[in-house]
Amino acid sequence: MPAALIHSPKRRSLCVGLAALPLACPPKFVAASEEDASDPLPSWRDTAPKRTILQFVQRTTDPRSPDFIAPVDRIATFDNDGTLWVEKPLPNEVYFMLARVKELAAADPSLAERQPFRAALAGDAAYFHEAGAKAVAELFVATHSGSSQEDFAAQVRAFLGKEVHPKLRRPFTSLAYRPMLELLAWLRANGFQTWICSGGDTDFMRVFAHEVYGIPAQFVIGSEVKRETRRDGGLLAVWRLPAVDAINDKDGKPVGIDRRIGKRPLIAGGNVLSGGDIAMLEYSRGRKGPSLQLLVNHDDAEREYAYAEKDDASLSAARARDFTVVSIRNDWKTVLAALEQPAREGTVSLA
Amino acid sequence: MPAALIHSPKRRSLCVGLAALPLACPPKFVAASEEDASDPLPSWRDTAPKRTILQFVQRTTDPRSPDFIAPVDRIATFDNDGTLWVEKPLPNEVYFMLARVKELAAADPSLAERQPFRAALAGDAAYFHEAGAKAVAELFVATHSGSSQEDFAAQVRAFLGKEVHPKLRRPFTSLAYRPMLELLAWLRANGFQTWICSGGDTDFMRVFAHEVYGIPAQFVIGSEVKRETRRDGGLLAVWRLPAVDAINDKDGKPVGIDRRIGKRPLIAGGNVLSGGDIAMLEYSRGRKGPSLQLLVNHDDAEREYAYAEKDDASLSAARARDFTVVSIRNDWKTVLAALEQPAREGTVSLA
Repeated sequence: MPAALIHSPKRRSLCVGLAALPLACPPKFVAASEEDASDPLPSWRDTAPKRTILQFVQRTTDPRSPDFIAPVDRIATFDNDGTLWVEKPLPNEVYFMLARVKELAAADPSLAERQPFRAALAGDAAYFHEAGAKAVAELFVATHSGSSQEDFAAQVRAFLGKEVHPKLRRPFTSLAYRPMLELLAWLRANGFQTWICSGGDTDFMRVFAHEVYGIPAQFVIGSEVKRETRRDGGLLAVWRLPAVDAINDKDGKPVGIDRRIGKRPLIAGGNVLSGGDIAMLEYSRGRKGPSLQLLVNHDDAEREYAYAEKDDASLSAARARDFTVVSIRNDWKTVLAALEQPAREGTVSLA
Repeated sequence: MPAALIHSPKRRSLCVGLAALPLACPPKFVAASEEDASDPLPSWRDTAPKRTILQFVQRTTDPRSPDFIAPVDRIATFDNDGTLWVEKPLPNEVYFMLARVKELAAADPSLAERQPFRAALAGDAAYFHEAGAKAVAELFVATHSGSSQEDFAAQVRAFLGKEVHPKLRRPFTSLAYRPMLELLAWLRANGFQTWICSGGDTDFMRVFAHEVYGIPAQFVIGSEVKRETRRDGGLLAVWRLPAVDAINDKDGKPVGIDRRIGKRPLIAGGNVLSGGDIAMLEYSRGRKGPSLQLLVNHDDAEREYAYAEKDDASLSAARARDFTVVSIRNDWKTVLAALEQPAREGTVSLA
């Protein structure tokens, strides 16, 4: 389940509207300008993080380097929400949950009488703030189960096709950070396997990961519902069950990476929010030999969102363990290329 | 856990001996002869399965073909025991379990007083035949948990380095089927991702999968114990817990593939034994568009082992669903290249 979902939404009121719009094309990754043609990371300013990244990739991929790593072990794992795409005011998957509740309530009106569905339909974020993680988990399970994997993917695809971010008014799939798209592409060009390791549902992310990030479904690690094999009319399918199987957040992330990859990441990237990525970065740091940890800090209210942790846990860990902190304000030239395009209306809104 | 372990061992008496031998080099995959230089599968006879495979790869990788599949979706999953390497008289991982019990009993002699450890130490297969899957699962959990992932890998490495197959007297890692090594290499040369999807423990197989098959750890799907993140002296590690998390056999295989890959395999390969691979092949068969299923039939007592299912379930499924049956006797020129090398002695033996 989305990592941040187990924390209560902070907004007072949410509203799922009615209009529908066609799916926008995913953003194309292009060099920022001709004069940057030789620069693999043109949306990064020439500050310390960029230099650290360039040097690290050079020394781990040059066959003459004592730190050379074979391609099969060039594992780079990235958190999604807040690291690869926008996670405010709420993680994008929350809007999917709200849209799904509306569909479920249309099919079964009695749902609207019961919590936490009534609160979700009313956009009553205060309820979730009070009821806490259990209510959010119940909403997650109800909106992420009860179908075959193929049907679930179709639900996600339909949602992404018609909805836009309630504040930024662009398709969710256009809200990836351009510097990170450049980094992913450049790592792959250097023989790295780029993976997502995030709190969102694995199969939710799988629908758009390849289109948006160039990351195939098989390289997406997330939270999961239980599943089982079913035979329906002669066709064997994998079915999504209404129970949580894994929460891929905090200490769950090293476990998720171990299950799916079996190697400590050579590069791990996360962001400052509720300490959700500390364990993943620490796990990467524990690798024998070279490793690099990136921690994105959201300090740019003008170009994106600015937010910090009350306990400063992620930045403290970065200082103690030598993680490379990436300041959006100072280290990124461009943040969201999509905002240069015209806004659109969708049906999910924040009142 | 090893799929076949939940079935009782059929041998009457097992014995774990004492000698130790150094790790042998893994078998190198080489073309059988110069006149086969243009043949990608020289160890396959020119019979129907080889022609089916060659045609299938051609029509799914030729960009002009209507059945063309992008490399990102060229997923091929293979069972390990009995499909990629020998699984008789018992799955190779059973010998690891027996060797581990011996080590555990050396550290804690009270273990030798308790079942199922006493039976394992005495080589009393009849006990397991009676006690059934539960006793085998207990043995599996005890021998596959209680350490960090790094330490477990070291245990497996040490075992593979000193032991040999009790009947064939060659290192376990040399007992891969040469025709399958050729097939894996050729599929990769054609842009396929080759995966293992087998009943053995994921992390047991990960130790040798790359060396033996060219399959990286991240492409190994198996049975698993539960795990958790622990911090030991400042180092965060993933720890193996004494409980089964997933059994990757029969209906568990489509679930394992869905978890790890999220796509129905374009090619799936299994073998005839207890119907363990039927669901995986059926799952692949349910793919929209082209797909190919291979079912290895062990019918060559002279060059390997000959065994069949009492209920003929796998071969029946093959007939009903058009799986391609590969007869070891008829379709493979060479089976085990390692048997052309001199035999060696190890410490695991069958009385």
